Amino acid sequence: MKQRVEIVTRILDSNDQLAEQNRKKLDAHQVFAINVMASPGAGKTSFIVQTIAKLPEGLRLGVIEGDTAPVTIDSDKIIEAGMPAIQINTGGNCHLDANMVGLAINQLNLDDIDLLLIENVGNLICPAGFALGNHANIVIASIPEGDDKPYKYPNIYRNIDVLIINKIDLLPYIDFRMDYFREGVEMLNPGLKTFEVNSKTGEGFDGWIEWLKERVSTTQK
Amino acid sequence: MKQRVEIVTRILDSNDQLAEQNRKKLDAHQVFAINVMASPGAGKTSFIVQTIAKLPEGLRLGVIEGDTAPVTIDSDKIIEAGMPAIQINTGGNCHLDANMVGLAINQLNLDDIDLLLIENVGNLICPAGFALGNHANIVIASIPEGDDKPYKYPNIYRNIDVLIINKIDLLPYIDFRMDYFREGVEMLNPGLKTFEVNSKTGEGFDGWIEWLKERVSTTQK
Repeated sequence: MKQRVEIVTRILDSNDQLAEQNRKKLDAHQVFAINVMASPGAGKTSFIVQTIAKLPEGLRLGVIEGDTAPVTIDSDKIIEAGMPAIQINTGGNCHLDANMVGLAINQLNLDDIDLLLIENVGNLICPAGFALGNHANIVIASIPEGDDKPYKYPNIYRNIDVLIINKIDLLPYIDFRMDYFREGVEMLNPGLKTFEVNSKTGEGFDGWIEWLKERVSTTQK
Repeated sequence: MKQRVEIVTRILDSNDQLAEQNRKKLDAHQVFAINVMASPGAGKTSFIVQTIAKLPEGLRLGVIEGDTAPVTIDSDKIIEAGMPAIQINTGGNCHLDANMVGLAINQLNLDDIDLLLIENVGNLICPAGFALGNHANIVIASIPEGDDKPYKYPNIYRNIDVLIINKIDLLPYIDFRMDYFREGVEMLNPGLKTFEVNSKTGEGFDGWIEWLKERVSTTQK
């Protein structure tokens, strides 16, 4: 048993080292990178596609798409929206790691990118434990998932910089107590920046785009 | 690297052995056990609560609730619905394993139970890899998760006996191509028994309850 713990620790150490290498490479090219985490079907790709549509002129975006299977459904949507996308197939693994992201970064022309969105595997548990080298973490929650998720999956809410509450157009059809949900988040991550949006229509995106602009501009002195 | 593979193999072996012990114990008490898997918020607990409401007279149910955090939100709902429930806190782990389920089984009075529902952790990836000793596997998909899930999370659909498509009341408000979804499932698991339901109202539950009755009755000769 002791042996196993040591090995796992070493794997995490090596992941952290690779994450640091990723960060250095991103910083050298003045790329601001965000790790996007969510449940399956919370709307990560739709959120990214809508972000592309609302992107301020001159802000150049790249996307890394993490999937557990060799399908290009998500990366196809990004490329259709006019931005470069690299697909990572985790081979059944439940999260991206720094090594996978490092390999994907090498395939992007970082000099042509200001903002890198890394869409993690759809999972509220595993991605929280693996640094990728990115500068900010966001979680996309969605109304139909229910208002108890911060209480049941607390770790993923703890170390994030922005929370997106997606699919607010479904609020009239679902028992979702926004107060209860937000109280749970507040306990885990006081004062967390939160935007309520509809990724289909773009409703609520102004605040998020403002936040993005501000963060990207501080990277590029 | 080789060392790590061997260790993981041994862990899986030992899980399989414990799963077999669980199965023997369940069989000795003529308990039919189902592993219920789904994304976070697909409606596992609501589905179980509605199943309890529609249970044929004399069919006695027990529930094991898996959660990654020490919260009793789900088990409270089961107990409120009048059935015994045991809570497992996986301590952040992304799936139940046979050892956890074995410990929970020991806390249930198996002679008073005909049907055991094991609600796995909300996750479409990890639970697929760990045998628990149960007799049937089901997945609950939900309309707002989107119609591409079989293509993106194929492993979880492969070895299941029943698929529940939940939240069909939301179909009018969401772009969900039922044909596309079902084609994806058919490729992975041809002829899979599938029920479209609304766990809030009980719509579509008759077929599922029939399937349950039949399977439980074959356990109890």
